[in-house]
Amino acid sequence: MKIAICQINPTAGDVAANRDKIIDRLAAASVQGADLVLFGELALSGAPLFDLVSHPDFTDRCMSALSDIADAEGGRACMSLIGMPTGDGDDVFDSVCVVAGGKMADCFSKAMPLSRDEAGRFSGMDAPGFDAPDDGMPQYTIKTEHGDILVVIGDDIQFIDTLDCFSSEETSPDLIVHLAAKRFAHSIIEEDAENYSALARTLKTPIVSCGIVGGSVDTVYHGGSMVFDKDGTMLLKMKNFVEDSVIIDFDNRHGFTGLFKRPLPVDGKSARTRHAYRAMVTATRDYFAKSGFKRATIGLSGGIDSAVVAAIAVEALGPQCVQGVTMPSRYSSEGSVSDSLQLAANLGIKCEKLPIEDVFSASLDTLAPLFGDAPFSVAEENMQSRIRGMLLMAVSNKFDTLVLNTTNKSEAAMGYGTLYGDTNGALSILGDLYKTEVYDVAEYINRNGEIIPMSIMEKAPSAELREGQKDSDSLPAYDVLDSVLYCLIEENMSVMDCAAECDVPVDTVVWIDKMLKINEYKRHQLPPIVSLSRMTLTRDRCMPLIVRY
Amino acid sequence: MKIAICQINPTAGDVAANRDKIIDRLAAASVQGADLVLFGELALSGAPLFDLVSHPDFTDRCMSALSDIADAEGGRACMSLIGMPTGDGDDVFDSVCVVAGGKMADCFSKAMPLSRDEAGRFSGMDAPGFDAPDDGMPQYTIKTEHGDILVVIGDDIQFIDTLDCFSSEETSPDLIVHLAAKRFAHSIIEEDAENYSALARTLKTPIVSCGIVGGSVDTVYHGGSMVFDKDGTMLLKMKNFVEDSVIIDFDNRHGFTGLFKRPLPVDGKSARTRHAYRAMVTATRDYFAKSGFKRATIGLSGGIDSAVVAAIAVEALGPQCVQGVTMPSRYSSEGSVSDSLQLAANLGIKCEKLPIEDVFSASLDTLAPLFGDAPFSVAEENMQSRIRGMLLMAVSNKFDTLVLNTTNKSEAAMGYGTLYGDTNGALSILGDLYKTEVYDVAEYINRNGEIIPMSIMEKAPSAELREGQKDSDSLPAYDVLDSVLYCLIEENMSVMDCAAECDVPVDTVVWIDKMLKINEYKRHQLPPIVSLSRMTLTRDRCMPLIVRY
Repeated sequence: MKIAICQINPTAGDVAANRDKIIDRLAAASVQGADLVLFGELALSGAPLFDLVSHPDFTDRCMSALSDIADAEGGRACMSLIGMPTGDGDDVFDSVCVVAGGKMADCFSKAMPLSRDEAGRFSGMDAPGFDAPDDGMPQYTIKTEHGDILVVIGDDIQFIDTLDCFSSEETSPDLIVHLAAKRFAHSIIEEDAENYSALARTLKTPIVSCGIVGGSVDTVYHGGSMVFDKDGTMLLKMKNFVEDSVIIDFDNRHGFTGLFKRPLPVDGKSARTRHAYRAMVTATRDYFAKSGFKRATIGLSGGIDSAVVAAIAVEALGPQCVQGVTMPSRYSSEGSVSDSLQLAANLGIKCEKLPIEDVFSASLDTLAPLFGDAPFSVAEENMQSRIRGMLLMAVSNKFDTLVLNTTNKSEAAMGYGTLYGDTNGALSILGDLYKTEVYDVAEYINRNGEIIPMSIMEKAPSAELREGQKDSDSLPAYDVLDSVLYCLIEENMSVMDCAAECDVPVDTVVWIDKMLKINEYKRHQLPPIVSLSRMTLTRDRCMPLIVRY
Repeated sequence: MKIAICQINPTAGDVAANRDKIIDRLAAASVQGADLVLFGELALSGAPLFDLVSHPDFTDRCMSALSDIADAEGGRACMSLIGMPTGDGDDVFDSVCVVAGGKMADCFSKAMPLSRDEAGRFSGMDAPGFDAPDDGMPQYTIKTEHGDILVVIGDDIQFIDTLDCFSSEETSPDLIVHLAAKRFAHSIIEEDAENYSALARTLKTPIVSCGIVGGSVDTVYHGGSMVFDKDGTMLLKMKNFVEDSVIIDFDNRHGFTGLFKRPLPVDGKSARTRHAYRAMVTATRDYFAKSGFKRATIGLSGGIDSAVVAAIAVEALGPQCVQGVTMPSRYSSEGSVSDSLQLAANLGIKCEKLPIEDVFSASLDTLAPLFGDAPFSVAEENMQSRIRGMLLMAVSNKFDTLVLNTTNKSEAAMGYGTLYGDTNGALSILGDLYKTEVYDVAEYINRNGEIIPMSIMEKAPSAELREGQKDSDSLPAYDVLDSVLYCLIEENMSVMDCAAECDVPVDTVVWIDKMLKINEYKRHQLPPIVSLSRMTLTRDRCMPLIVRY
C-alpha cells in the first residue's frame, strides 16, 4: 500500500485555511496513488488551542470542515487520517477522524491529556470510538489488506507497550502509525528518533510518524515525521520545521520498499544551535504570517542580543521588512550607533536614528519639582529604557509593524531589564536562550562570513543607562551565571547542590536564586517567549509572584 | 469535644511565618481547652503554590515546620489538622497532616487535583495514608470518643456522596470536617453556604468547614468557614476575608451546643458589590503586606476607574500610603485635574501634578524626521499614555512604591487601552469588573457620603488622547457592551445566541467578538488581575494569541 505522510503547517483556529490545505495535499496524494494519507495531531484545527476547544461552536466548525474534506475526497479510493478536536462543551477530545468513501468512517481519541497546555481543556479516556479495556490504554486498529495498522495519537505513545496486542506475534499490528504535534525543545529531534528506533526494535513493529510544523506564537512544532523499520532502522526523516510530503510503499510481507537506511541524527552542539536558530526563525516568520503583519521594528543597542534578533528577523521576513532603530543617550558609547549601523549595512536593512536626549531632558525637568535633589537612581536608568520603548512603539504604531523583543533568558531570570522598556515587544525571540547561548547563535549566524560585526561580538555587555555601566557591575560573569541558572531552572537543583555542581560560592548561588524568585513579577508581563527548552520561563516554570521562600 | 476553627492568612511559600502563626493559634486554642484544632487546606505552605510544590526542598521544609509545630504542641492533649503539601519531586500531594501527642500521627491526601491552577502540579490518588477503595473516592476518618470524624480536603467534597460509609446509618460518620482553600468569586459565599446546607441535610451529618483567607497576588481566599447542623441549619459563619478563630462544642449525642441558628446569606446585588469591594481591598492590602512594599502610586485621570482604585488603595493601605499623580495633556479637559484634586482631598491623599506637554512635544520633535507629515494617528494617542506610564514608573522607582493598574474588564476585553501605558502596574485591581460594575463599586464607596466626586461619577468616559475624544466614539454604550461581553465571556455563548439574548444587532456582536479575540496579545502582558469572577481574563479564559477564527 502507498502511504502519504503530509506534514503541514496549520494555523490555530483557522479551520477554513487548514481544511483547504488538507484538501490540496489529499488531492496531490490521491493523484500519486496513495491508499492511506496521514495528517498530524490537530492538523485541521491547528494547535495549541487553549480555551478555544470549548468555544461554543469550534468543534462543530471542525466537523463541518471535515465534511468538506470528505466531499472533496469524494470518489477516491484512499483513506485519510486527520487530527482534530471532537466532542463539545466540557467533553472535548484530541481525536483522529478517519475519512473514507466520501464520509467520516470512524473517529477515535487520545487517552491521556498529559501536557500542561492541555490540562483542564481536553478530556481523556472514554472517548467515543474507543475500544477501551477496563484499565490501561485504549487502542485503535485499522485492518487493511496489507496488514493491521495501530494508530496512536501524541503522548499516548508512552503507554503503547501496555497494550495487550503486543503480547503475541499473532495479535501484534503490522505497522504503528503515530500522529503527533511535537513542541520543539533542545535535542528533542534526536531523542525522538532514538525513542522511535528503540520502540520499533522492542515491539518488533515498523513505525510511521506524522507531525505538524510551524510557529504558533511561543510554540514551535518541528514536525518529526519519520519512518522506522521493525529492527529500529531509520528509513526516512522528513524536513524539520517546514512543510513536507512524501509517499512510501509498505506491505506486511516486505515492509517498506524503496527507502534507504539513514543514520540516526547525532546531538552535537552545532545541531543544538542550528535547530534553535531555525526554531526562532520559524516562530518569527509564522507570528507575522499568521497575524497578518509584514514588518518588524527592532531597537538596535549595539549589543549582541538585538543583533541576533535582527539577523533572525531578516532570515524570517527578508531585509526589506525589517527596520532597525538606534536610540543613543548621553550614556551611550560611540559603538552603540556605529556598530548598529554596520550591522544594518551587513543585513541590508534600514536603521533609523532617534536620540533620546531631548525626551530624557524634558522628562527630568518635568519630574524635577517632585524629585528635588534626590540622587540619580534606578528611576533615571529605567526612564531611558522606557523612553526607548515608547519611541519604538510609536514607530511601530505609525508604520503598522511589530516590535520584536530582545530579552534573553539570563536577563529574564535575573530581572535584568526594564519593564515597559526593553521588555517591550510582540514576541520574545531570545527569552529561552541563556546569554552564552546567544553568542553561540551569533557565531552560527556568522558561519559564512561576518553578519554580526566582530565589535559587537567582542564588546563587554552593557545596558548603558549610566556612566561607564557594565553588566558585570551587577551580575556575575555570564558563564558563571548561566551555569548556576541552568542548574536552578533546568535541573531544579537545590542551592547547595547547585553550588557544588557549579563550583560557585554558596552565597553567590543564594543571591542568584533570590533574584530569580523576586523577579517573577517582571516575567509575568513579558511578551510570549519562543520556547526552545523544556523549562521556558513563564510557561514551564511558574512560581508565585510574591514568594517569601 | 471542643473544636477550634482557625481561619488564618498564610503567605505562599513563607513556611516559617505560617508555622509561627499556626503555633500561636494552636497555643491559644489549647489554653481554651480545644480537643481538635483545624487549619485550612495548605495553611502551612500558603497558596497558590504553582511550581513551588516541586521546588527541590519545599515539601521537606514544610515537613520540618510541621515537626516544629508538633514540638511546640508538645504535651498538650489536643489533636490538630494542618493543610500542607507532602511528597516530593513529581509526586506532591495536597495533604492534611494530623499532629497529636507531640508528633505527626498521620497524613492523608486529596484525591483529585481538579483546578487548573493545580493541573500538572499536585498528584492525585494513591497518596500515602489513603484508605483507598479500588474505585471511587478514598476516605479518611478520625475515631474519637465523641464520634467518627470524616475529613475531606478541598474539591474532594464534590465526590463525598460516592463514599460507601453513607450507605447506612451505622457506618455514617458523626461529623464531616471540610478543610479548604476557597478562591473568591461573585456569589460563591452564598453558594457555598447553600451547598453545605444541602449536603448536611442529604447526608444527615453535621459539617464543620475551615478555610484560609487573604490575598495572594490575583487570588483572594475568602475563608468560608462555617458550621452546619445535620438538618442543614447554619449555626455559625466566620468572618469573610479576614482571620478569625472560634471554639465550638460538639458530641455525637447532642450535636453542637451553645451555637445559635443563623440565616443562610442571601445573594443580593448589594452583597455582590460589597464582597467584590472587600475582595479587592484584601488583594491590595496583602499584595503590599506580603511583598514588603508600603506605598502605592496611582495615575488619576479624573475618570471613574482611577478614582475607585484610589479609594480601594486608601481603604487597604491608609491615606498616608497612597499617592495620586495627575498628568494633564493638551487634550485633557479641565476636570481631569480639578476632579482628581477634589478626589484626593476627599480621600486625604497627596496628588502630584506632572503635565506631559513638554515630554510629548520633545517626543514629537524627536520622531518628526521619521514621521514626516503623516497624519495624527493612534501612534500619537498611545505616546501620551506611554509617557504617563513612564512618568508614573519613574515616581514609583524613585520613591519605592508600587503602581496600581486601573484597567477594567470591559477595556481589557476590547483592548481599549495602551500597552506599556495605562496597562502598567503591579496589580490590576479592576481587571475583573466590567465598567458598569465599576460604577456599582463607586456608589458603594460613596454609601456614607461623597468620596468620589459626583463630577467623576457623571462625566462621559474618555481617554482624552485627542481633541474631544469619548469612549463612545469607538465603543458601544457600556451597558450594551457589558451585556454582550458578559454573554461571550462568562456564558461562553455563540455570537448568534448572544445577539438574541442581548437584543443587539448581530453585526455589533460580531465586531465585539472580533475585538475580544484579537486583543488577547494585550491581555497577555497585563499585570495580574484580582480575580472576582469564574472567568477572569488571562486566567480562566486563555485563547491563542493569534487566532483566525
